[in-house]
Amino acid sequence: VIDVVVFDGDDTLWHSEHLFVDAHARFADVLAPYVDDRDHLERAVEVVERRNLGLFGYGAKGFTLSLIETAIELSGGQIRGNEVQTILELGKALLDHPVELLDGVDEVTSTLAGRRLALLTKGDLLHQESKIARSGLAERFERVEIVSEKDDTTFSRLLAALAVPPERVLMVGNSVRSDVVPARASGAHAAVIPYRYLAAIERIDEPDPATLGYHVLGSMREVPGLLADLDLSSTR
Amino acid sequence: VIDVVVFDGDDTLWHSEHLFVDAHARFADVLAPYVDDRDHLERAVEVVERRNLGLFGYGAKGFTLSLIETAIELSGGQIRGNEVQTILELGKALLDHPVELLDGVDEVTSTLAGRRLALLTKGDLLHQESKIARSGLAERFERVEIVSEKDDTTFSRLLAALAVPPERVLMVGNSVRSDVVPARASGAHAAVIPYRYLAAIERIDEPDPATLGYHVLGSMREVPGLLADLDLSSTR
Repeated sequence: VIDVVVFDGDDTLWHSEHLFVDAHARFADVLAPYVDDRDHLERAVEVVERRNLGLFGYGAKGFTLSLIETAIELSGGQIRGNEVQTILELGKALLDHPVELLDGVDEVTSTLAGRRLALLTKGDLLHQESKIARSGLAERFERVEIVSEKDDTTFSRLLAALAVPPERVLMVGNSVRSDVVPARASGAHAAVIPYRYLAAIERIDEPDPATLGYHVLGSMREVPGLLADLDLSSTR
Repeated sequence: VIDVVVFDGDDTLWHSEHLFVDAHARFADVLAPYVDDRDHLERAVEVVERRNLGLFGYGAKGFTLSLIETAIELSGGQIRGNEVQTILELGKALLDHPVELLDGVDEVTSTLAGRRLALLTKGDLLHQESKIARSGLAERFERVEIVSEKDDTTFSRLLAALAVPPERVLMVGNSVRSDVVPARASGAHAAVIPYRYLAAIERIDEPDPATLGYHVLGSMREVPGLLADLDLSSTR
């Protein structure tokens, strides 16, 4: 029986990555005078993001700083103040966008009667808090954890705080790397609902669902059915 | 009797603001070709920081973005890529500096036998976690909370998580605005240990210690004595 459902935030409960995709496109427009190969630009952004990840962590502020750094590198220091200003504004737009729930999220999170719900998300602290507040869903979660990295440690810490054994937990997220792997390593059940876009930094050679033992769903609306199946199989 | 001592992190347990003071000086050097009035520059930085606070929150990443924004504004968009690069590096140096404990912190936090200790800090999540880990003090705290803003709500939430009545709590920090005021509003005792520097954004017209009822200490080494006094006065 599943007592607790832990949800990821960005691209699981609300749309996020499409904003980054748009930011990349606008960044490419700014850099057009200096770089004409879009693939080269994307690879350079990813290299800078990965290099800065240990210092900046996830989130829009570090992403914006990495874009500025990439712009300086690829322009050979020739990028101009007004162009940097455009990159800054593009970063601020990421922090300031309205929160739009994904299809089915409002209904499903309001109808999981009898289950305890938690939210586990990563990124800039204030930005995540602000999105949770604006989502209108905050009251539905018994516990909200904003962490700098989702790994075995942070996932196990959440389960300890919830005082629930892992086999009674289902993690629902969009990233195999950040949602499924830590949950499975902790002994919890996991389901991934792939989002239209996945950040380059989240991409891994995905383990076979059968091998790692996780579920792939088409939408949030399939979560209640999965929960019913998991409840059944644990009592068989 | 005081059961729980809650410590602030930056400029209470470890040095921090001197790094920002140094960053301001290096920023002034970068801007020297565009701005010769240092006071004007400092005021402009503060205006931009305050304007961005609701979006960026506290911490070195938002500070760095605000410095870049200030540089673009004050140079009329003339700032060059290599100058922006210098500002970026100055921001990274803030995130990467070694953690140096303030005088007395190691001894005092290790000798408060019988008290429960907590840490309440604000700023970039990953940066604060990294400083706590590198401080070598993490094991001494029953609870560590990194928040986006220190106010009545976050302070009261910490006390609820610790399950302690406010009159049995002493908050120790360096900022009247962020440490004393929320603690007093929640009914806890509070002591301020002023640091050599206080960020512009933390400055308030400080309420009289007698009116607001808080203690002003010269150093961390005075905390055990204050605790003894508070224990005594509560049993009289």
